Amino acid sequence: MNNRNNTTSDRKQKKVNESRTTMTEMVMPNDTNPLGNLMGGNLMRWMDIVASICAAKHSESHVVTVSVDHVSFKRPINVGDVVTLNANVTRAFTTSVEVYVEVFASDIKGGNPRKCNHAYLTFVALDENKKPTAIPEVIPLTSEQEKLYEGAGRRRELRLILGERIPAKDAKLLKEYLLAQ
Amino acid sequence: MNNRNNTTSDRKQKKVNESRTTMTEMVMPNDTNPLGNLMGGNLMRWMDIVASICAAKHSESHVVTVSVDHVSFKRPINVGDVVTLNANVTRAFTTSVEVYVEVFASDIKGGNPRKCNHAYLTFVALDENKKPTAIPEVIPLTSEQEKLYEGAGRRRELRLILGERIPAKDAKLLKEYLLAQ
Amino acid sequence: MNNRNNTTSDRKQKKVNESRTTMTEMVMPNDTNPLGNLMGGNLMRWMDIVASICAAKHSESHVVTVSVDHVSFKRPINVGDVVTLNANVTRAFTTSVEVYVEVFASDIKGGNPRKCNHAYLTFVALDENKKPTAIPEVIPLTSEQEKLYEGAGRRRELRLILGERIPAKDAKLLKEYLLAQ
Amino acid sequence: MNNRNNTTSDRKQKKVNESRTTMTEMVMPNDTNPLGNLMGGNLMRWMDIVASICAAKHSESHVVTVSVDHVSFKRPINVGDVVTLNANVTRAFTTSVEVYVEVFASDIKGGNPRKCNHAYLTFVALDENKKPTAIPEVIPLTSEQEKLYEGAGRRRELRLILGERIPAKDAKLLKEYLLAQ
Amino acid sequence: MNNRNNTTSDRKQKKVNESRTTMTEMVMPNDTNPLGNLMGGNLMRWMDIVASICAAKHSESHVVTVSVDHVSFKRPINVGDVVTLNANVTRAFTTSVEVYVEVFASDIKGGNPRKCNHAYLTFVALDENKKPTAIPEVIPLTSEQEKLYEGAGRRRELRLILGERIPAKDAKLLKEYLLAQ
Amino acid sequence: MNNRNNTTSDRKQKKVNESRTTMTEMVMPNDTNPLGNLMGGNLMRWMDIVASICAAKHSESHVVTVSVDHVSFKRPINVGDVVTLNANVTRAFTTSVEVYVEVFASDIKGGNPRKCNHAYLTFVALDENKKPTAIPEVIPLTSEQEKLYEGAGRRRELRLILGERIPAKDAKLLKEYLLAQ
Repeated sequence: MNNRNNTTSDRKQKKVNESRTTMTEMVMPNDTNPLGNLMGGNLMRWMDIVASICAAKHSESHVVTVSVDHVSFKRPINVGDVVTLNANVTRAFTTSVEVYVEVFASDIKGGNPRKCNHAYLTFVALDENKKPTAIPEVIPLTSEQEKLYEGAGRRRELRLILGERIPAKDAKLLKEYLLAQ
Repeated sequence: MNNRNNTTSDRKQKKVNESRTTMTEMVMPNDTNPLGNLMGGNLMRWMDIVASICAAKHSESHVVTVSVDHVSFKRPINVGDVVTLNANVTRAFTTSVEVYVEVFASDIKGGNPRKCNHAYLTFVALDENKKPTAIPEVIPLTSEQEKLYEGAGRRRELRLILGERIPAKDAKLLKEYLLAQ
Repeated sequence: MNNRNNTTSDRKQKKVNESRTTMTEMVMPNDTNPLGNLMGGNLMRWMDIVASICAAKHSESHVVTVSVDHVSFKRPINVGDVVTLNANVTRAFTTSVEVYVEVFASDIKGGNPRKCNHAYLTFVALDENKKPTAIPEVIPLTSEQEKLYEGAGRRRELRLILGERIPAKDAKLLKEYLLAQ
Repeated sequence: MNNRNNTTSDRKQKKVNESRTTMTEMVMPNDTNPLGNLMGGNLMRWMDIVASICAAKHSESHVVTVSVDHVSFKRPINVGDVVTLNANVTRAFTTSVEVYVEVFASDIKGGNPRKCNHAYLTFVALDENKKPTAIPEVIPLTSEQEKLYEGAGRRRELRLILGERIPAKDAKLLKEYLLAQ
Repeated sequence: MNNRNNTTSDRKQKKVNESRTTMTEMVMPNDTNPLGNLMGGNLMRWMDIVASICAAKHSESHVVTVSVDHVSFKRPINVGDVVTLNANVTRAFTTSVEVYVEVFASDIKGGNPRKCNHAYLTFVALDENKKPTAIPEVIPLTSEQEKLYEGAGRRRELRLILGERIPAKDAKLLKEYLLAQ
Repeated sequence: MNNRNNTTSDRKQKKVNESRTTMTEMVMPNDTNPLGNLMGGNLMRWMDIVASICAAKHSESHVVTVSVDHVSFKRPINVGDVVTLNANVTRAFTTSVEVYVEVFASDIKGGNPRKCNHAYLTFVALDENKKPTAIPEVIPLTSEQEKLYEGAGRRRELRLILGERIPAKDAKLLKEYLLAQ
């Protein structure tokens, strides 16, 4: 059962693809370390930009980054490679929204295409007085979107623990999930 | 009748959407003039990047910009706006390929969406010795792609005149077109 | 006979050299593609900057880029090369002005000096309310300046057609010129 | 009992303060979003740079970023603010090393000093052939360094789960820790 | 006898280490000339930033650079090297303050550590109306700080001559010093 | 009597205007401090670039910056202003050459034109093995060029003292000059 059905809300609802955002970057010399590989921090900067554009479009307001979940860098990206970043909202929580970013790379000729990594970022929407403001609900339509929507609850709990906003003992969904493994 | 059917070629053929490239940029303070508008030259820089990624992907080789056709800037783009650039190949000529770039902008909230301008850029594909190399033919599938494909002949003639590679009197297609208006 | 003499105008008049602007740039790694050549878009960005400084100086007001005419890239420029850009106004049309930019390159030692390309850019002058404002007339003094002044009429017609502001059939000067070739 | 005493290793040992690294940045207009706040991605880029310099110094070799743990952004940083980042190694695991980065901000006059956030980043050391190479052990000396050293085991397990390298059920230290809360 | 004891001032007094500032930079490809060495101008830009942060912190106000004394570049710094800049105030003169910056470099592995150069920069503190404002006195505590404090008088005279604000004949301290050599 | 006549040299001789270099920059938001003024360090970076292009052209070889003499910043330069830098060689000393840079600014409309500052930079010419190499002599033609040529001897002495390469007592020309004031 889909837990988003539990809420009977007047909030505006928007589909995932209404705010989907794609960014393409060419890796330039200054983006790389002395080994010629894209530095992780530069990739995270691009992930933050594409995700914040996506979050702002879904929220129809200004947004600020609240958190970036664990990111691992599995495959090196080289100078001259083309990096494509896709951002999709997964779920909104009153005044915050989670965005899922996937990163793909290939060489300039389109060769060696590969998924490099992904991350979840969360944003808070701000009104003109820089106060948090309500965000439209996300309507997942595909099974992939449903899966991302449902995982968002667990990721939020982990985030609250790691951000030291709730004690670990209150992370019900997360404990349930870890113990079920 | 579609003039690309006139050639019986062994050249590799690729569809337009195999190399379609989308780039999204946020307009930062340094991209703007003292009036707070995106400077034309910065937009052209982005157009060149997205078009060259698209051309390289279609060509499966390195490319260099050969020409940028007339660009006009109709609607101002402001600091903080989001700019989306779509690049599609229109037609290949032995070792060169024309790319059509369209530029859209909206504010960060997705408001005031508008088409800002478009341009045609041409690229030459280079092999490892920096010598021009053959480019796959473009297969147009939609009527929009057909129209872009057919117009490419005239645009090429105009380009050859403006680049002072042929005398104006040899621009058959162009003269025909101008006189038919 | 010089057609600028046909108008009896009260507009301020300024000489070409009052606003002549020279810009020098060293090609840095981030300006180049993976082949080590200056990317066309970066060169166009520099052309836009030097031309807009020249146009603003002639106009004595803020300016925005209205169009960039066809640019072709004839000779590659390499990392470490020195690029010199010269901008001169050619002619003013009420609230717009055309600027001619020439691009020269050499290696850092001054060797291999060469003209790389040129382009015509047009700008509109804006007053404090961002409304178009009158621009002083350009007084050509040399035969080179005269030639650029006279060609400006034909280039303007081509621009109006390409920018879809007038139908091709109304391009009198241009048709005349093409048919005379 | 300190678990680093369990290993009897020939590995070189280095103290935390031998590689401590401090970076100071002034927040410039281009680092900020339209609300005038430092964008999260730019801060992460700086965190990655300072941490990688620290990791390389400890490792005495080139390093690449393997992962960045959860980062939350608690207090906004404004244009013109001064950001200070301190990076310290916490613990090395054969060929990887964890670095703890703390971020402080104040206004340009030194007013409103505050801790903004912190993060753990991990790096792999690479030799001249880009193969992973051994990293000296970290010797914690203060109680704060001891605490960071001991927590590194748990953080590593969480990282391996989140990076999908081990199943959640194998995360012994982490389960123990969560259930003990 | 320490000449700062001669003044009986109500001015606020601050110690050198209250505003000490450290900056670390990695030399990227765009920071270097075609020989792969950090360009002198880029190093001076970093020196100005770190010194102005230090001066603003000591002054508790905005500052602008008034002068940079002679800088010589003794040892080349290479792409990929890590540069560390330390800034300390030496002495304040009513509304201006002198900052001493030392530059160290090493390779990314911490190898080949070396002092590269140093410089004295002076800043004026400005209030909200951009008018010069009083700066707290500097209290030197170590003998190194004493030496820098005392030399500041001579350097100021040389600066006034070189900046053409006093005739050379009025440089009492400087003449004394030169003739005593 | 002109002291350059004292040497009977086989060295190549070049005129000042053969390597004169002009650079024009528009002050962008990222170039300025929070008060909206161009930061001194950014101006010095531009001065170093234009001077090194000029020195390389005169020397017909790669050059590296050896020193920058005292620079004072007399008039603020604002965001949106246009900065023009002129570089001229003054005199060559075997393997080094001094370049004089003058900085002018105006607003974008050409209003409020003013000289902002000037500086002397010295460069060493390097051959392909990065060894110092001979530089052509500078032939001053105008009285202004003569004056700059003659002052170069004194400035060189001051530089050698300040760079701690000669003791102050050996600065003959400088002492003579100071005592004559």
